[in-house]
Amino acid sequence: MKFCVGILGATGTVGQRFIQMLYQHPWFDLRVLAASERSAGRKYGEAANWLLNMEMPEEIATENVVLTDVKEVRKVDDVDIVFSALPSDVAKKVEMEFAKEGVIVSSNSSALRMEEDVPLIIPEVNPDHLEIIDLQKENRDWEGFAVTNPNCTAIPLTLILKPIYDNFGVEKVYVSTMQAVSGAGYPGVASMEILDNVIPYISGEEEKVEKEPLKMLGKLKNGKFEFADFVISASCNRVPVMEGHLESVFLTVKEKMDLQDLKNILKNFRSVPQDLRLPTAPENPIHVFEEENRPQPRLDRDLEGGMSISVGRIRKDVSSENGIKFTILGHNSIRGAAGASILNAELIIEKYL
Amino acid sequence: MKFCVGILGATGTVGQRFIQMLYQHPWFDLRVLAASERSAGRKYGEAANWLLNMEMPEEIATENVVLTDVKEVRKVDDVDIVFSALPSDVAKKVEMEFAKEGVIVSSNSSALRMEEDVPLIIPEVNPDHLEIIDLQKENRDWEGFAVTNPNCTAIPLTLILKPIYDNFGVEKVYVSTMQAVSGAGYPGVASMEILDNVIPYISGEEEKVEKEPLKMLGKLKNGKFEFADFVISASCNRVPVMEGHLESVFLTVKEKMDLQDLKNILKNFRSVPQDLRLPTAPENPIHVFEEENRPQPRLDRDLEGGMSISVGRIRKDVSSENGIKFTILGHNSIRGAAGASILNAELIIEKYL
Amino acid sequence: MKFCVGILGATGTVGQRFIQMLYQHPWFDLRVLAASERSAGRKYGEAANWLLNMEMPEEIATENVVLTDVKEVRKVDDVDIVFSALPSDVAKKVEMEFAKEGVIVSSNSSALRMEEDVPLIIPEVNPDHLEIIDLQKENRDWEGFAVTNPNCTAIPLTLILKPIYDNFGVEKVYVSTMQAVSGAGYPGVASMEILDNVIPYISGEEEKVEKEPLKMLGKLKNGKFEFADFVISASCNRVPVMEGHLESVFLTVKEKMDLQDLKNILKNFRSVPQDLRLPTAPENPIHVFEEENRPQPRLDRDLEGGMSISVGRIRKDVSSENGIKFTILGHNSIRGAAGASILNAELIIEKYL
Amino acid sequence: MKFCVGILGATGTVGQRFIQMLYQHPWFDLRVLAASERSAGRKYGEAANWLLNMEMPEEIATENVVLTDVKEVRKVDDVDIVFSALPSDVAKKVEMEFAKEGVIVSSNSSALRMEEDVPLIIPEVNPDHLEIIDLQKENRDWEGFAVTNPNCTAIPLTLILKPIYDNFGVEKVYVSTMQAVSGAGYPGVASMEILDNVIPYISGEEEKVEKEPLKMLGKLKNGKFEFADFVISASCNRVPVMEGHLESVFLTVKEKMDLQDLKNILKNFRSVPQDLRLPTAPENPIHVFEEENRPQPRLDRDLEGGMSISVGRIRKDVSSENGIKFTILGHNSIRGAAGASILNAELIIEKYL
Repeated sequence: MKFCVGILGATGTVGQRFIQMLYQHPWFDLRVLAASERSAGRKYGEAANWLLNMEMPEEIATENVVLTDVKEVRKVDDVDIVFSALPSDVAKKVEMEFAKEGVIVSSNSSALRMEEDVPLIIPEVNPDHLEIIDLQKENRDWEGFAVTNPNCTAIPLTLILKPIYDNFGVEKVYVSTMQAVSGAGYPGVASMEILDNVIPYISGEEEKVEKEPLKMLGKLKNGKFEFADFVISASCNRVPVMEGHLESVFLTVKEKMDLQDLKNILKNFRSVPQDLRLPTAPENPIHVFEEENRPQPRLDRDLEGGMSISVGRIRKDVSSENGIKFTILGHNSIRGAAGASILNAELIIEKYL
Repeated sequence: MKFCVGILGATGTVGQRFIQMLYQHPWFDLRVLAASERSAGRKYGEAANWLLNMEMPEEIATENVVLTDVKEVRKVDDVDIVFSALPSDVAKKVEMEFAKEGVIVSSNSSALRMEEDVPLIIPEVNPDHLEIIDLQKENRDWEGFAVTNPNCTAIPLTLILKPIYDNFGVEKVYVSTMQAVSGAGYPGVASMEILDNVIPYISGEEEKVEKEPLKMLGKLKNGKFEFADFVISASCNRVPVMEGHLESVFLTVKEKMDLQDLKNILKNFRSVPQDLRLPTAPENPIHVFEEENRPQPRLDRDLEGGMSISVGRIRKDVSSENGIKFTILGHNSIRGAAGASILNAELIIEKYL
Repeated sequence: MKFCVGILGATGTVGQRFIQMLYQHPWFDLRVLAASERSAGRKYGEAANWLLNMEMPEEIATENVVLTDVKEVRKVDDVDIVFSALPSDVAKKVEMEFAKEGVIVSSNSSALRMEEDVPLIIPEVNPDHLEIIDLQKENRDWEGFAVTNPNCTAIPLTLILKPIYDNFGVEKVYVSTMQAVSGAGYPGVASMEILDNVIPYISGEEEKVEKEPLKMLGKLKNGKFEFADFVISASCNRVPVMEGHLESVFLTVKEKMDLQDLKNILKNFRSVPQDLRLPTAPENPIHVFEEENRPQPRLDRDLEGGMSISVGRIRKDVSSENGIKFTILGHNSIRGAAGASILNAELIIEKYL
Repeated sequence: MKFCVGILGATGTVGQRFIQMLYQHPWFDLRVLAASERSAGRKYGEAANWLLNMEMPEEIATENVVLTDVKEVRKVDDVDIVFSALPSDVAKKVEMEFAKEGVIVSSNSSALRMEEDVPLIIPEVNPDHLEIIDLQKENRDWEGFAVTNPNCTAIPLTLILKPIYDNFGVEKVYVSTMQAVSGAGYPGVASMEILDNVIPYISGEEEKVEKEPLKMLGKLKNGKFEFADFVISASCNRVPVMEGHLESVFLTVKEKMDLQDLKNILKNFRSVPQDLRLPTAPENPIHVFEEENRPQPRLDRDLEGGMSISVGRIRKDVSSENGIKFTILGHNSIRGAAGASILNAELIIEKYL
């Protein structure tokens, strides 16, 4: 028996990825496509500017878009779960209403991520943080609940830091990103701004990259999140690439380590989603490249359906005793967005429900 | 009276920039265009795949290309100075022959940069290093001499570090670059490699960026270069941009500093080329942007004819007490290559000859 | 003594080009920058998203933007001429008001182009069409008047057709365009739509390219435009290029012609703006390339400051007896927009006032 | 039982597509990877610069590359069929040797395409031309034989012309192309040539596009090809797109036709490969778009695994009585190259062997 699900913000860039990953999902039955007033009431095929290079499934194209409102959605179907790709300014209110009314909200929006009783989850990193849900429901007197996933840049960084943090400790992280235009959604970055260009600024991005990993790598103790106690410093750049965020990382670890050990630890990293064989989980969460010029967005973003992140150019950084540097890549709208929320929902089903 | 000059490697990307900057230069009379056997003997207009968006000057198009050999060049003209845009594998031998035969070699090639008696110069940074020339001529028994300029990525970095180093000291530098394809010359980076992509590796580049600035910021004492004593760690990336290397810098300085002081120091930075009013010198070597999303390659690379570098997003980096971060940009084939060699030659004329 | 001028729609892509070409113009004194309510009342430097790769002139940055309304503009300065870069939906009303109130309107907007008493002018093509102005003023009881220039794609096509039409007659024209993103203004084409892509459709464009040249190549007889009597068929495509519209043309002429004759006629084409030495007129309106792979947007769009169009690959088209084919290029936002309106104003001053 | 096959020119752009489409092919067992001296003797994983965004299959990476020589290939395996992605200058000699020695050569190279006894085949268009093989073997005293497929630009054009030609007759075709960089192979087009640019010339391309379709749409009578008797005029352009050739077509047909009839005929077009259910055949050879802005390379090139071509913007062309115009798209390295040769081999197996 499948769970009935809906998508909030179904017409946008992340919404389209949700459709791509959900319309044939083994556990989920996609029943509702919700969007803003501009789209509500229209056929999805007319409302959405479809930008994926797969044909829009016929049953999606002819579906009526409903308003992102819990009552309107419920008129169509009594969904168990909604996936939220809402812009952060409207997400908070809408997501809270769904959760209050008994729906499980798996959100890619940033609105609730840093709330004290909302788990910010990457299933390979901190599946145990789901425990806070009980407190959340109690605090807020909600019948449902909300779980969030981090920002598209924070996800590959946190995934790679997880085994390093566990094995060697982390002291300091510098990260300079080269992010794809799809991360800004549609219309997002104008072509006149980015052709033959790089924009060395993405509004609000550095704050997220610097904070979210610390919540996830921290501990949940007595109903409180204790953040990991190192510092991340980020510089975020937009490059003329369609999909795939590349990140140049300089890292100081706490304990001495051998590069080959590190590579093995990364290569062999498996976690709860792999053990549970969650449908959307990649076999290898981390793909380690030995080639000197990889990973590259165009070539490597689609590894394991876009759910595996990659790392390459792992080398010593002589600037500090325990310094290493490397380059990571994650598919921003799959692993970094829609796939992240879906994997969270799969984890919830297996571990919390 | 003008100096007679020639270009070695005149048909390539940097060679074309040399032509653009020299054919109407007030001090230099461009007499010889030299290139490899493939081009020698042909008209320049036929030999070169001209890729600049200005028309090739008619007098250049009809000029005969000669072989990059001191005897062949001298058959055409008894040049005082040659500008070298030779690939590093052939540069060493050729440049040494020219210098031996009495020609001043102003080289953009990496071949001689780190030699113990060869100055590596940015006129705004270390004009006093020209003093080593006497020793060079003596050591090698040369009638001429060779002066080099650094790598296209090292130039903007060193220029920005110079006033910081002098005022606050530098402890550590992390730099992640986003470099234009023109930096690899022609044909260089294949379009299939870089469209919709970033390549996180440039052969030999990180070594140069990590070492060259330390020679230039070091002191010349008793005929020996004492390198500056801090560490630079670089990650070099190629992006789909035509011109302009962007660099994300994380920096720890030695002494406390105020951000506004730093900005003022950078804005007001002037040096020997400005005092001497060298023809190719920019009025402001460093352009400071206050806008949150600048500098950008397409918009800012051409500042002051491509000879001014720019810096923006100057902000505190909370990861260390004296940490700052910022983004810099330099036009790689003008300030970072041809313009660098030409400015060096102008400095030599005013300060050494 | 200079003419006082203003720009309507000063903050957009074409508006910025107007500023670039007017702020140091020998005949015009740029007094007013007008834009929509969103910008009115703000400093230009804050209101505009400046996308040119020259620094915004300081005196422009600090100028107050006024509303595009004849009364508001007149409060600032009693301008003689306004250059209109207004979007076509608002242009008609606004431009008519300015003309009624005694201002000369030189418009790049499409709103009035095909009106029966409004001249559609390329100074090299149909300067005599200015004669209709008297009728326009009389008809409409206007103190001022409006003159328009054609669409950015129609301009290079019409310029190249002019000498061909005059010398050999034209029977049929097929044109397939490859147009730069700047032609759609800002934000215009989203980066997600155009990176690694071509869009084979531009709303409203084909109609303009098919009709406007026929008005300009037609005759003005007894106060009526007789359109040229051939057919143009267009297919318009958007490509990932910043500036410069490239057009692939297949043409059947009426009379036999020799390719070399044609090339000479194009090369030697000069017209009224060249005779009058109008400040913005290119020395050679048409640049003929003999190289087999030119013109190219990046390399050739800036010829003569972007005011010269280029043509290359002129060759026989065996599909019909008098068939030829070639490729043309024009800088869409200079020759194809701002420069077109400015050249029209210069012509008006010399020929009509 | 599978046929043993090899790839000639396995390391290049088309060679890689052959691997992608063959290594799990139901009828073919990929036994030999052959390439030039530069690669022969090395592991494929080291010899090839893999540019596909799928991981290189492990069994391919570790395979030894052999020289493209019939004896060397036979030392490895007694292949039944070789697929040739050889550059045309070496293809002729090599392919003839293989054919002579009894191997079936299915070639994507242009070398033999226009030979009088070599079939140039698109299985949906002229499967009956295989009949010439008997004559070819007899003429040349070969034990094997060679079959070719057309140029990557000619394939979508011919496919779309086929049903039109059969139903309405064709009088004249103008086509202006916008071709992807992958069509030039690797390294092919330099990034400095194509970023922010279009190149209005592709060496040798127009001749192929103008001739090849006429051979295929012609008749094979008494061992002679009678070419179709209309004229194609082409202008070929290179655009900054990775994959997918877009073509703007203006067409005059012989008989009156209704646009809706035409669309239906194109939509319903099926042919021999569909009837035979060849493994690589698309279900719909032609995909008809009704959207006004399709097909687009990035969105539509991968339809049916890249084997379906698409057409959109079908509209009347008023320039002649029976004029129509439309835009077509084909995946140049799949339908236009590797997939074309593979589909030809499948056809040969079903229809000739």
